Amino acid sequence: MKIKVLNPNTSQGMTDRIAEAARAVASPGTEIVAWCPVDGPPSIEGHYDEALCVPGLLEAVRQGEADGVDGYVIACFGDPGLQAAREIARGPVLGIAEAGMHVASLVARSFSVVTTLGRTRGIASDLAERYGMQRFCRKVRASEVAVLELEDPSSNASARVLAECRRAVEEDEAEAIVLGCAGMTDLCKGISQALGVPVVDGVAAAVTLVESLHRLGLATSKRGEWAYPLAKVYEGTLAGFSPRG
Amino acid sequence: MKIKVLNPNTSQGMTDRIAEAARAVASPGTEIVAWCPVDGPPSIEGHYDEALCVPGLLEAVRQGEADGVDGYVIACFGDPGLQAAREIARGPVLGIAEAGMHVASLVARSFSVVTTLGRTRGIASDLAERYGMQRFCRKVRASEVAVLELEDPSSNASARVLAECRRAVEEDEAEAIVLGCAGMTDLCKGISQALGVPVVDGVAAAVTLVESLHRLGLATSKRGEWAYPLAKVYEGTLAGFSPRG
Amino acid sequence: MKIKVLNPNTSQGMTDRIAEAARAVASPGTEIVAWCPVDGPPSIEGHYDEALCVPGLLEAVRQGEADGVDGYVIACFGDPGLQAAREIARGPVLGIAEAGMHVASLVARSFSVVTTLGRTRGIASDLAERYGMQRFCRKVRASEVAVLELEDPSSNASARVLAECRRAVEEDEAEAIVLGCAGMTDLCKGISQALGVPVVDGVAAAVTLVESLHRLGLATSKRGEWAYPLAKVYEGTLAGFSPRG
Amino acid sequence: MKIKVLNPNTSQGMTDRIAEAARAVASPGTEIVAWCPVDGPPSIEGHYDEALCVPGLLEAVRQGEADGVDGYVIACFGDPGLQAAREIARGPVLGIAEAGMHVASLVARSFSVVTTLGRTRGIASDLAERYGMQRFCRKVRASEVAVLELEDPSSNASARVLAECRRAVEEDEAEAIVLGCAGMTDLCKGISQALGVPVVDGVAAAVTLVESLHRLGLATSKRGEWAYPLAKVYEGTLAGFSPRG
Amino acid sequence: MKIKVLNPNTSQGMTDRIAEAARAVASPGTEIVAWCPVDGPPSIEGHYDEALCVPGLLEAVRQGEADGVDGYVIACFGDPGLQAAREIARGPVLGIAEAGMHVASLVARSFSVVTTLGRTRGIASDLAERYGMQRFCRKVRASEVAVLELEDPSSNASARVLAECRRAVEEDEAEAIVLGCAGMTDLCKGISQALGVPVVDGVAAAVTLVESLHRLGLATSKRGEWAYPLAKVYEGTLAGFSPRG
Amino acid sequence: MKIKVLNPNTSQGMTDRIAEAARAVASPGTEIVAWCPVDGPPSIEGHYDEALCVPGLLEAVRQGEADGVDGYVIACFGDPGLQAAREIARGPVLGIAEAGMHVASLVARSFSVVTTLGRTRGIASDLAERYGMQRFCRKVRASEVAVLELEDPSSNASARVLAECRRAVEEDEAEAIVLGCAGMTDLCKGISQALGVPVVDGVAAAVTLVESLHRLGLATSKRGEWAYPLAKVYEGTLAGFSPRG
Repeated sequence: MKIKVLNPNTSQGMTDRIAEAARAVASPGTEIVAWCPVDGPPSIEGHYDEALCVPGLLEAVRQGEADGVDGYVIACFGDPGLQAAREIARGPVLGIAEAGMHVASLVARSFSVVTTLGRTRGIASDLAERYGMQRFCRKVRASEVAVLELEDPSSNASARVLAECRRAVEEDEAEAIVLGCAGMTDLCKGISQALGVPVVDGVAAAVTLVESLHRLGLATSKRGEWAYPLAKVYEGTLAGFSPRG
Repeated sequence: MKIKVLNPNTSQGMTDRIAEAARAVASPGTEIVAWCPVDGPPSIEGHYDEALCVPGLLEAVRQGEADGVDGYVIACFGDPGLQAAREIARGPVLGIAEAGMHVASLVARSFSVVTTLGRTRGIASDLAERYGMQRFCRKVRASEVAVLELEDPSSNASARVLAECRRAVEEDEAEAIVLGCAGMTDLCKGISQALGVPVVDGVAAAVTLVESLHRLGLATSKRGEWAYPLAKVYEGTLAGFSPRG
Repeated sequence: MKIKVLNPNTSQGMTDRIAEAARAVASPGTEIVAWCPVDGPPSIEGHYDEALCVPGLLEAVRQGEADGVDGYVIACFGDPGLQAAREIARGPVLGIAEAGMHVASLVARSFSVVTTLGRTRGIASDLAERYGMQRFCRKVRASEVAVLELEDPSSNASARVLAECRRAVEEDEAEAIVLGCAGMTDLCKGISQALGVPVVDGVAAAVTLVESLHRLGLATSKRGEWAYPLAKVYEGTLAGFSPRG
Repeated sequence: MKIKVLNPNTSQGMTDRIAEAARAVASPGTEIVAWCPVDGPPSIEGHYDEALCVPGLLEAVRQGEADGVDGYVIACFGDPGLQAAREIARGPVLGIAEAGMHVASLVARSFSVVTTLGRTRGIASDLAERYGMQRFCRKVRASEVAVLELEDPSSNASARVLAECRRAVEEDEAEAIVLGCAGMTDLCKGISQALGVPVVDGVAAAVTLVESLHRLGLATSKRGEWAYPLAKVYEGTLAGFSPRG
Repeated sequence: MKIKVLNPNTSQGMTDRIAEAARAVASPGTEIVAWCPVDGPPSIEGHYDEALCVPGLLEAVRQGEADGVDGYVIACFGDPGLQAAREIARGPVLGIAEAGMHVASLVARSFSVVTTLGRTRGIASDLAERYGMQRFCRKVRASEVAVLELEDPSSNASARVLAECRRAVEEDEAEAIVLGCAGMTDLCKGISQALGVPVVDGVAAAVTLVESLHRLGLATSKRGEWAYPLAKVYEGTLAGFSPRG
Repeated sequence: MKIKVLNPNTSQGMTDRIAEAARAVASPGTEIVAWCPVDGPPSIEGHYDEALCVPGLLEAVRQGEADGVDGYVIACFGDPGLQAAREIARGPVLGIAEAGMHVASLVARSFSVVTTLGRTRGIASDLAERYGMQRFCRKVRASEVAVLELEDPSSNASARVLAECRRAVEEDEAEAIVLGCAGMTDLCKGISQALGVPVVDGVAAAVTLVESLHRLGLATSKRGEWAYPLAKVYEGTLAGFSPRG
């Protein structure tokens, strides 16, 4: 099968690392296509950043549909555009917050999310509620590491993330950790070894869940809310986005 | 004060009616500026439509800030872009679903929402939950009237909306009605008279609430989640959206 | 329009300050009538105090109806008698806890309530739940300032309230504050300036919301729970309260 | 022990039947004292009726304390004045809605409440939520029998209540019934026999629970919200209610 | 009436103390029969221990039915086997967590549970949710006293439990305590005297509630989920457990 | 990897069909070992049946640990023994209700469960709550097909299950179906084709999720509630179950 992994910020470096993490867990027969936009925010750290990355991401899904993609992963912890993408895709679409939290709830009674900046904590909490995972989520913690610091080897980003994860285990008594940013994907194994609890990287989790759904023959229900968008003609510069129904 | 009312679809006719409803309840000293985009969906009927109207709407808020606008109303019942707009505006920003539901909860123990197409009911339910209004919301009902039918005098849209409102009162025992589309603004008074319960039009409700907040000297908290977006340089065609912090 | 502001304790001084706060935000055409009882508790600090102030307050509403009052504000943070008052009033009736919490939720994702004595915290929490505002309410904090200390210039009440508000911002990460007593109305502006977050005084908030409802042509639904009381003859000394239906 | 059963309406006939029901389940050593007010509403059918019966009921508790009463039952399904009464009583105070719902949840996974008039359903629902019993409560149903019809042998009140209970079992699949009015106490056994499910009369349930608490040596916690009211001097005609702390 | 108190661990000493606590609160006419198994875990400290004690406990209920037992108490704070036991018993069956939490909610707005080992806190929290008592439960605290230390006079178990209860009152502001282990039954009075708040022992609470239900003529509803098990023939060594319907 | 699929009833025929369903979705490198007990209930249709199948199931997990099993699926929709099994297994353990509901929530905003007998609906609802899936679960529906009727080709079980699924789509507006019994595994594809919505078989879903967790290197957290059972010596006939810690 072909899975398109969508990193909605413009960082090629982060996209490469995400692709690597995806390939590391993908099944033998799975092709991973990683994408990031040319236009838009270099990092997603709030509602405004999120809102502006979504049209590009949806264009990438439209292109994916033309290219025979079987499933998608939205590799940004706010899961931007998830429901819109589900409307236009044939196959399953998963967000990494969604995937990470679901998976964590299968191996632990409780988890804490460790994310980047404090201002994004509300976004993660809202998603926990939307996915029904709030009852497992002890706390959403901010490491106050900016997204792009994760790309900078000279920062001590990984130590700060680890320290916050340790606080989650000790203070929240979290039985597992969900990493709250696609850019943390390569920290997963080290933190798990350091702390002795399951640590979930949403990118890897989402890839395996998309594969699961594919093997089960399941795709987004087209009855109800995630049916294909109604056919209509968009005006002006957005005409290219017009849904054909 | 100056309030900018944002209709995120491209229908000028609906925008005019929305402006009229806004002006009908505005205080003497309030200037209503109504806006709709040139580009994008002619009606908003799902997540995909919503996602694509947001960047234009945010551009209109940025322009509003330059023009000295004191507060904003997002005149589409999905409240698209609400949180992103709050990040970039100095003054208050309200969605019409938010305003309509809050106001209804002040005059009735329970309400039902009567909206357009069934596929948007989940959006309204999610908003009811987000705003804490779920406990008052008996049901979200679809009249199965498409948004643009509301603009077409030859359709029997208003009769069908009324019929659905009547079912809300009789079957759900709703003590009030919240109209689930900005395009229904001129049906409000008639339905209330026909059914003998309060009927809330979100556009009018939002205008008076923005005025209230303004008179109270209150604007969106800039501490925490709705702080101004972090300064960063957006890439490519979206460079113009780059937040200055 | 004419709004009657009901302070259910017997303190004329507090009533005067409440009236002042109400007039400061009222629209030009609004007349504010402030009332407090001759009989009853000098301050409301628990369920027993609340229960005993309610009949007098309901009598004041009955008188208001005879006097052509258009709307009411119950200016005590426990919102005593709110539902009973709604049954007998033609126009809208709002409590200041209700108004304060709703307004805060429109300008911040989270707030803390800062109230007087610890023993009243449960009352405020119950109201937050009843109004659907619990999800926004980080904490109900007690300043342990008694209600009448707020009237005593020689007490350091305002400093203690400010200190508790500061803890709300720093420890709860509240993005706004709701003041938990009508007697705090004149502290609002100072605390907001000191802390840099929106601070909501329920009295002012309720006045503007009653005006909003009035301008929207909305009054309490008379279908269902808040219908006029059934006509019946009360016995003995309470005969004067007999509802005429 | 001595239990005072408080019927807050002025119907002596209903009070007598309540006393009988209380005595029928009381332990050998328990003395039942039944009380109803001379002044006030002849039946409690809404928030206004409730609010006005409370001061008399609190006076009866104050008298009970002087008389060495060990525990109280508030025999009206809205549990009016329950929290205020707890503040001033040494021993336990239970409401019949509270008692009835708790007891039902111990013998069935789900129950429906069958009450009198539709306008009181919201009150019962709010209590179910307050007591944590909402998850067991399938539905609050109104028989549309007025309270005083239950006193009138020529009405077919009991048949109508039974019919509504039958609907609860058949339509809601309720596994038990909670009777929603103290005036239904003598219907309990007959309905249970007719329908083959547990039917709970709150009066009887409350009496046995007060006895249980007494035997366990438990009384209302005086730490926190239900501590004795603060000592203060009430003004004017209410001076006699002044709490001594 | 005859109440069978089931201690599902094999400790005869603990069973004796439980029996004593049960008899201390039972009414004159109540016979207490205490039981513990010959086979199985000497203490119940997790899901695995719980799962393995249940068949023996169910056998004891089957024997009780043959012996004319009128009601049962499951004297282990995880309430193991409660729903299965309800299916096979004619009379009421109560768990001590269930009884303790319900009773505490009748005398205090909030309680904390103080239990044995940290690993069992999730079990107690789940039960609080199941019984609707989560809204009253401030915290489930572990004293980290193992169950059998409670039987060892040379341990300082009682001091450690008291210290944890004190933290519950001071840090959680709990207005009452629920003891989280049947083995703590004899600590109840001392802790209450030391801390000045109601302290609830589930064993005693359950005995009085079973008596209440018996006096009310109520038993587990046999309509719905807790109906008698369907008649079927169990295979092999479990044939003796075959339900006869 | 090696996955042991545990059917806790004694039906070899159902076990064979479950094994077949498991193998149909398993990855090439996965070995499926299917197990059912020799002793115990021939079908699981209530709490009592569940309680008695658990010890045998735990013995099968203990044996699996000795045999190098990597993960387990509990193939009964009540997920009996799930938490106890997690305590004693190294690798992941999933229940089919858990797996089915999680997977459905990834492809549809709402689902209904269609199960066997009405008396088991409460069990499924409780699990939906425990897993955070209640918000997606429109209704738990009973087809009133007994478990073993599913094994009987002469029954019209599959038509009755399909009819109930159709009602779920039409009346509940469920966007997906979760089949509520392991014995329905072979109906999955047909129902999906007939109704045009995703239909989830928990057995297949659980197998792919266990594989996912294995590929992610994740196993049950051993910190906290699902740590290995404490070492202790069980008495008498259960001595063989004694945990070694």
